[in-house]
Amino acid sequence: MMSIITLTTDYGLKDHFVGALKGKILSENPEVQIIDISHDIDPFNTAEASYIVGASYLSFPKGTVHLIGVDIERNKENQHIAMQWNDHYFICADNGILSMLTQKIVPQKIVAINIHDRFPIESTDLDIFIQVASHLAKGGLLNVIGKEITSIKEATELQAVVANDGNSLKGYVIYIDHFGNIVTNISKKQFLEISRGRPYEIVMKSKNIKTILPNYSAIATSDKYPIKNYEGEKLAIFNEAGFLEIAIFRSNPSKVGSANSLLGLNYRDVITIKFS
Amino acid sequence: MMSIITLTTDYGLKDHFVGALKGKILSENPEVQIIDISHDIDPFNTAEASYIVGASYLSFPKGTVHLIGVDIERNKENQHIAMQWNDHYFICADNGILSMLTQKIVPQKIVAINIHDRFPIESTDLDIFIQVASHLAKGGLLNVIGKEITSIKEATELQAVVANDGNSLKGYVIYIDHFGNIVTNISKKQFLEISRGRPYEIVMKSKNIKTILPNYSAIATSDKYPIKNYEGEKLAIFNEAGFLEIAIFRSNPSKVGSANSLLGLNYRDVITIKFS
Amino acid sequence: MMSIITLTTDYGLKDHFVGALKGKILSENPEVQIIDISHDIDPFNTAEASYIVGASYLSFPKGTVHLIGVDIERNKENQHIAMQWNDHYFICADNGILSMLTQKIVPQKIVAINIHDRFPIESTDLDIFIQVASHLAKGGLLNVIGKEITSIKEATELQAVVANDGNSLKGYVIYIDHFGNIVTNISKKQFLEISRGRPYEIVMKSKNIKTILPNYSAIATSDKYPIKNYEGEKLAIFNEAGFLEIAIFRSNPSKVGSANSLLGLNYRDVITIKFS
Repeated sequence: MMSIITLTTDYGLKDHFVGALKGKILSENPEVQIIDISHDIDPFNTAEASYIVGASYLSFPKGTVHLIGVDIERNKENQHIAMQWNDHYFICADNGILSMLTQKIVPQKIVAINIHDRFPIESTDLDIFIQVASHLAKGGLLNVIGKEITSIKEATELQAVVANDGNSLKGYVIYIDHFGNIVTNISKKQFLEISRGRPYEIVMKSKNIKTILPNYSAIATSDKYPIKNYEGEKLAIFNEAGFLEIAIFRSNPSKVGSANSLLGLNYRDVITIKFS
Repeated sequence: MMSIITLTTDYGLKDHFVGALKGKILSENPEVQIIDISHDIDPFNTAEASYIVGASYLSFPKGTVHLIGVDIERNKENQHIAMQWNDHYFICADNGILSMLTQKIVPQKIVAINIHDRFPIESTDLDIFIQVASHLAKGGLLNVIGKEITSIKEATELQAVVANDGNSLKGYVIYIDHFGNIVTNISKKQFLEISRGRPYEIVMKSKNIKTILPNYSAIATSDKYPIKNYEGEKLAIFNEAGFLEIAIFRSNPSKVGSANSLLGLNYRDVITIKFS
Repeated sequence: MMSIITLTTDYGLKDHFVGALKGKILSENPEVQIIDISHDIDPFNTAEASYIVGASYLSFPKGTVHLIGVDIERNKENQHIAMQWNDHYFICADNGILSMLTQKIVPQKIVAINIHDRFPIESTDLDIFIQVASHLAKGGLLNVIGKEITSIKEATELQAVVANDGNSLKGYVIYIDHFGNIVTNISKKQFLEISRGRPYEIVMKSKNIKTILPNYSAIATSDKYPIKNYEGEKLAIFNEAGFLEIAIFRSNPSKVGSANSLLGLNYRDVITIKFS
């Protein structure tokens, strides 16, 4: 059986780190398939890593091992963990990255990795992760590489918040994508629970949006004009990861601008949905 | 038999899209080799995608499946197609991307993909492409996933034009590469047909070039000086894709400048070859 | 037996070159694993390529073939070579790239590649490299593709220099990584030989450093404060490649700055270690 290890890191692609990481994995396990998710996570930004891992894991077969190389240097605040969750495996530092997953579904098992003493003194934190990933990709057990624990660090700021009167949902920008579209932490699931069919308005800085579209092209409401006429219009959709996204139709950040630049929205800016 | 699927998209490498795309392909077809051609196509720029696909397909074995993820959202103007051409397969939206190929060689078969109704409502356009690519990579037939059609959209602006008097060939910049060298839509084949050995001059904004070199190093015409002395000189060659390229010898865009920056040439700028 | 070919080039990832290169390798040798080390080498910067290859090769199994596509156009000054060294294979132009390796360990065999005449006239320099890489990855002999030579070009500027009185070691910046940390050509091995346990100080422009740490987190010397308090502090370590690195703890070049931007250190700047 082929097994897959995915990589999500903030190492960038300029340096040799990602290539060397793959060489070490293949030295341990020549049969494994290694797939890059992203190596352009904003350095040390665990919220971004959390979003990217949550948005991508489901595209892989059950049993896939997801190695997350963001902020992994082990120190007094940062232990190494491995988690079996929804039949996938995740290896990372206990820095909140997995809490977007564990808030949705209870983990099958979590261990604090405890094999560090078996390694030569010059081994890096990444060497430990590689060993654990190879072990799991070969079908090895979590108990062999760690001690079971029952809780991990929560990153509470990743959750959108419902107002006390139940009439608004307040989230913020957690990700800005390649097209400059901005992604919020308001999920479709949470929106549907709160809205119960009520009219709503998305409030963000000066410009509001009154409709969440089923897809980008739905911005073209009239058959009288070519699709091209709608380029540059702002819109809102729930993206394929299930989160509210504010986009510019056919945006090109370096030419005509993007939701990020045109609407002045940036990381951590507040987006509120008001129901009436 | 190993089969190969290549990917050419404007998705970028920061987001999880390319990794997730690979996960879905491997879930369908664990044996396939997936090769990235480029994920940095200028967003929605079908001319760039067209050039990149045309320049790269021939490096792959016959039977390779080329998935082109640029401007693929299906709407009234944009249907999904699959084409067998020169013993390769191409999957894309019918937005002109393939016309650089079909202008050279007649396609073996083209189908309008018609399997969308078989998919769950939440499927994306890319999910359809993945299914078609997997099907073709396994040796499946085009007829199973679409209805045969006889013509596709032409992108006439991709062709260089011969003047009525036959004394000049007018093209324009279709691509700017990693080194800042600029590529035109004037092909070596077309140049040889028109020139018939006549002297010529490449006319572009203020500075002209009188010779097309066989390779970059040919700029070093004298043995008296080290190659280094020629750094920064402008030159013209037909590149490995067969198109006229205006380059700066050993250019480094971030340091000494490039053809793009030094000669002030940009996308869609006109380049004319005048014969005498 | 699986064999691996690694790629280190300055081709960038925007163009089709890297994808096409992989297609040609797979056409020759469908079973080989191709691993990207970096395609973002600063254009024509052989010192960067040298550092990256030296820092990464050891992560791969013996027998791996390392193809280096930086400044490979063959001309009167630049012949093509292949080297067996420390049970790995390297293919590149003879432009000094391999001298960081050969200064440490004597090569097992070096050949000047001489198969160019067997290729069609339109073949590129890269086509030759691909043929040689496929040949070696299949277990082929060096003698079949080249004529043995005994020396290659030295890049003497890559070596740190000991002062005549033995009281200082003078190196310079050879690499700036994705995090903006700067890497010098002062190796841990050379440092230990010269220092013999003496106190030392790292002298660089205006700010000096008195301790080389065992790892980044060691900057947090007190348990009274959270790790976060130490963000932005400068530090020195020997990195995983064995070279002196000047870093900013948890730096983020685009936000809070990096060693490169904050300390004003750039390529070729001098760093001296003074012993007392």
